[in-house]
Amino acid sequence: MKAEIISIGTELLLGHVVNTNAAYLAGKLACLGVDLYHQSTVGDNPRRLSESIRTALGRSDLVILTGGLGPTVDDITAATVAKATGRPLVLNHSALNGIRSFFKSRKMRISAGNERQAYIPQLARPIRNRLGTAPGIIIEIRDKSIICLPGPPRELCPMFEEGVAPYIAKRFGRLDLLVTRTIKTVGMPEAGVNRAVRDLLELPPPTTVGIYAKLREVHLVIMAKAATRKLALRSIAGIEKKIRRRLGGIIFGYDDDTLEGAVGAILIKKKMTIAVAESCTGGLISSRLTDVSGSSKYFIRGAVPYSNDVKVKYVGVSRDSLKKYGAVSRQVALELARGIRTVMDVDIGLGVTGIAGPDGGTAKKPVGLVYVALAKEGGSVVKEFRFSGSRQDVKWHSSQAALDMIRRNI
Amino acid sequence: MKAEIISIGTELLLGHVVNTNAAYLAGKLACLGVDLYHQSTVGDNPRRLSESIRTALGRSDLVILTGGLGPTVDDITAATVAKATGRPLVLNHSALNGIRSFFKSRKMRISAGNERQAYIPQLARPIRNRLGTAPGIIIEIRDKSIICLPGPPRELCPMFEEGVAPYIAKRFGRLDLLVTRTIKTVGMPEAGVNRAVRDLLELPPPTTVGIYAKLREVHLVIMAKAATRKLALRSIAGIEKKIRRRLGGIIFGYDDDTLEGAVGAILIKKKMTIAVAESCTGGLISSRLTDVSGSSKYFIRGAVPYSNDVKVKYVGVSRDSLKKYGAVSRQVALELARGIRTVMDVDIGLGVTGIAGPDGGTAKKPVGLVYVALAKEGGSVVKEFRFSGSRQDVKWHSSQAALDMIRRNI
Repeated sequence: MKAEIISIGTELLLGHVVNTNAAYLAGKLACLGVDLYHQSTVGDNPRRLSESIRTALGRSDLVILTGGLGPTVDDITAATVAKATGRPLVLNHSALNGIRSFFKSRKMRISAGNERQAYIPQLARPIRNRLGTAPGIIIEIRDKSIICLPGPPRELCPMFEEGVAPYIAKRFGRLDLLVTRTIKTVGMPEAGVNRAVRDLLELPPPTTVGIYAKLREVHLVIMAKAATRKLALRSIAGIEKKIRRRLGGIIFGYDDDTLEGAVGAILIKKKMTIAVAESCTGGLISSRLTDVSGSSKYFIRGAVPYSNDVKVKYVGVSRDSLKKYGAVSRQVALELARGIRTVMDVDIGLGVTGIAGPDGGTAKKPVGLVYVALAKEGGSVVKEFRFSGSRQDVKWHSSQAALDMIRRNI
Repeated sequence: MKAEIISIGTELLLGHVVNTNAAYLAGKLACLGVDLYHQSTVGDNPRRLSESIRTALGRSDLVILTGGLGPTVDDITAATVAKATGRPLVLNHSALNGIRSFFKSRKMRISAGNERQAYIPQLARPIRNRLGTAPGIIIEIRDKSIICLPGPPRELCPMFEEGVAPYIAKRFGRLDLLVTRTIKTVGMPEAGVNRAVRDLLELPPPTTVGIYAKLREVHLVIMAKAATRKLALRSIAGIEKKIRRRLGGIIFGYDDDTLEGAVGAILIKKKMTIAVAESCTGGLISSRLTDVSGSSKYFIRGAVPYSNDVKVKYVGVSRDSLKKYGAVSRQVALELARGIRTVMDVDIGLGVTGIAGPDGGTAKKPVGLVYVALAKEGGSVVKEFRFSGSRQDVKWHSSQAALDMIRRNI
């Protein structure tokens, strides 16, 4: 059972739109146990679309087309599929009723263009669109299927869930399920994680492990294919145990967990409070900590003391240290952490100072130099980092390093 | 001159990663005047990748491959291209030196896997990677070119700008250029912008206009194809003038401008300073304001007074108002704005309070209710918003509304 996705739209080939539909459908197909070997994008061009459909039908059992179902002249999908499959467009009354009731429920008048959307290839079946005018289309050709879906994600996603996933499960019979488990690590470069689990990365199907490097995170994805969820979970559990034994402390979470969420969960568990004084990150660490629902339980205050005066007056950094060591220094990071902790009377004080760039660097203190400090009962820690990349990259890396420091020190 | 993009990575076909590289490259190729007719994605599978390369070389002059250049066994791009083109992998000393100096500058030891990245097809040329270990690869086969780029966007984008765009311009000579001009608006829904410029959206080539809705922004993209940049710019200028006349005040910038950058430019021009007291946005507004290089000139301090005590003690919100109106109220937003302005002695004080959700809403004060206030010499303004979506959506929408309020009131 092989599937393939064809994304249609000149806007994709001009780079005006990022193709999130392909990733969404790929993920859904994987969960249904359908193998996806190709995804391709073509513009609003009948000849090239025809060619793509023919190539796809030659090598895949299920071809999913997205986009080009709208009411304008640019929308060529239905007509091109009709031609490529030798099934002329005919008015489908159930599709027409669907479109009419869509307009009626919104108290709007239907246009000729929208009525045109009820024409679908002969012997094809419409799929209801709750959130737009274009019905989806299912065409069966011997043992193969073509499915056309509308381009807007808010129409496509519910249509897939409600009308397409059940169809695929029924039409292509019982398929093996693919269950995935993502293990997320922070604080070790990809090469190091790779070395620790190299043998697992070479496991043959049906249970495999992939490695993905994100900005200062490395994710390991265990994928198990099996007839039942229970069987898949069992083979995942064995590998997960091995990975946990080898990587231990650098694992911060699983699946949809975020680093800020993991930090929040530890703070809640330990009933600790935190305040942040961040200079070069400009509020990013506070923003990430407060992205977590319920963060008001532990996050007391964020401070972005951008100017030296504010560092002195409101966080208690000493003018001497600023003069002697400079604003970007180990010393000032520590004083920011200790200062905000004392001022706010919290368990954890975090201080960050650095040079985000692109300007402001010197030979001794280059762009990307960042100090992260943490103050808690019984002592403080401070670390020096040298990050590369854009201003936003340096901010992001710094926030990752800071969140990881909280995680490791409480 | 036809180009084609092949994206490589099983993670793309499993839906673990959204293919932003394809959109980035598509946009860049369009600007260079290169026609892109196909984009396809294949997994880490040598046979299917070979097939894709052969198909692409059969119909396109320029084939760009992304991904699969890393140091692990999954990374099959260089070896597969070598095989498909009949050019065996050989050690390239310039590539090896690049990788070595990357590790040296970071004071890290080079691994065997990374040395392997210096092997590229015979007669190919490496492209320097400033931000990672994998060099890019350029292979010329008669009048066609294959270009391999690393998968991580932060490595791919600068490499394209610095090493690939100049190469394409030189190798493929004079092309009809596509020049685009993006006009960015904030504060009016897509339907309203659409109504104002409907006639322009239907212009025929060579100069067309597209409309794209982003989170609380609407972008209009003017695209002109012409033999010279000057000619293209001339036809763009005429349409741009019309759009500016019709949309005036809701336009905040052009092309790569960001809303935070536009706000920063106005603050610098007016020699004004700003401080922010943001509760529900949790530091996001400060972080966005400080994403702008040079923001230390106007951004004096960010405060994230998450708890009521901090609002009272450090920003000067009155306990009476908190009691009488609640923390999420017009009154408290105003006191945050006025308080931070007075405490910090800045020109502009911004105050934000709201319910980001998903918990904490009530019938009277639902999730998504947000107040944004601005205090300046001669008075204050405050606005109520009701946003929908996730916690992060509400935070983002609030930050957009706040930045727009600054823009409109100074």
